[in-house]
Amino acid sequence: MSISAKDVMELKNQTGVGMMHCKKALTEAEGDLEKALDLLRQKGLAIASKKASREASEGLVSSYLHMGGKIGVLLEINCETDFVAKTDDFQGLIKDVAMHIAASNPLYVNREEISSEVIAKEKEIYASQVTNKPAEIVEKIVTGKLEKYYSDICLVDQVFVKDPDQKLKIKDLVVEKIAKLGENIVIKRFSRFQLGEKIS
Amino acid sequence: MSISAKDVMELKNQTGVGMMHCKKALTEAEGDLEKALDLLRQKGLAIASKKASREASEGLVSSYLHMGGKIGVLLEINCETDFVAKTDDFQGLIKDVAMHIAASNPLYVNREEISSEVIAKEKEIYASQVTNKPAEIVEKIVTGKLEKYYSDICLVDQVFVKDPDQKLKIKDLVVEKIAKLGENIVIKRFSRFQLGEKIS
Repeated sequence: MSISAKDVMELKNQTGVGMMHCKKALTEAEGDLEKALDLLRQKGLAIASKKASREASEGLVSSYLHMGGKIGVLLEINCETDFVAKTDDFQGLIKDVAMHIAASNPLYVNREEISSEVIAKEKEIYASQVTNKPAEIVEKIVTGKLEKYYSDICLVDQVFVKDPDQKLKIKDLVVEKIAKLGENIVIKRFSRFQLGEKIS
Repeated sequence: MSISAKDVMELKNQTGVGMMHCKKALTEAEGDLEKALDLLRQKGLAIASKKASREASEGLVSSYLHMGGKIGVLLEINCETDFVAKTDDFQGLIKDVAMHIAASNPLYVNREEISSEVIAKEKEIYASQVTNKPAEIVEKIVTGKLEKYYSDICLVDQVFVKDPDQKLKIKDLVVEKIAKLGENIVIKRFSRFQLGEKIS
């Protein structure tokens, strides 16, 4: 089958991946743009995991204010070079993530930040809700509920509020940028203040 | 002696206090503008302490980014009404304090946030540095050093970086605004991120 130049360009624009790779992915996907995107994302993921061990100490601190100062977010995202930090792609990422934090109110960047006591307690609660099931089923249910818990309160596990399909997680967003920009990218930390909220 | 209208206006602009009070203060200060300002500040202080017990749950969350995102500050300051939060005076205050935090890197809003263990340890160190002195002298020296410690790390005890005389503390800045705006104003919390710094 023939792949249209328009689709190749579209895919290139969406992913930032080179023309040849886009054409190859579209051929492999038999012209299906969404499938081709997935194929590239899988490759991007492969590239991303290789980069993920490299140190990221450059980047940006950015902020987002919502409703004229009723909610404020401060966010640090790291990359490897100041050059990448200055790209529109990186600046778009930090803007998107800051806006997402304002809207979705995560409590942690990732699950590694949650203390083992809190996780143990959650597990205990979930397990106590399941009765008369074999241990391996209980284990499965608890694991499932724990994943749900992470996706509620951990930034990288949350679904990106601006994703129209409500599938793309914040970590996917980061992986896409790693694949596109060719540098390791790490969400380091954030603060979110809501006017008048109680603080402990 | 006669007080010039120009001085009265100047004092009014600097303090936001009514014309009559300005004229009275200038007369009392025998035309000395700085002394008159001090007199008004003393009165402002009296007003401010009365207001300080009233609840402040309105206000603003604001941010400040330094050097294109190398340092970022998120700050919440509360007042009593949204009306005051929208005034140029209040917005100027939050902007000034956020900028100050970026420059001066305080660790706490005020001394009440420091744990008693940390303070006890500081006191111990200071006391151990003084030898062969009567207990009351040691106590005085320790208290003095502790004040110095607070003014190093507590936002409200720090000298405002933009004060040309390097005398005005952040808490004085707040008291001035309380006197001028007629509402209790409280610096609630801040975050300060410096790109690439180690976090614990």
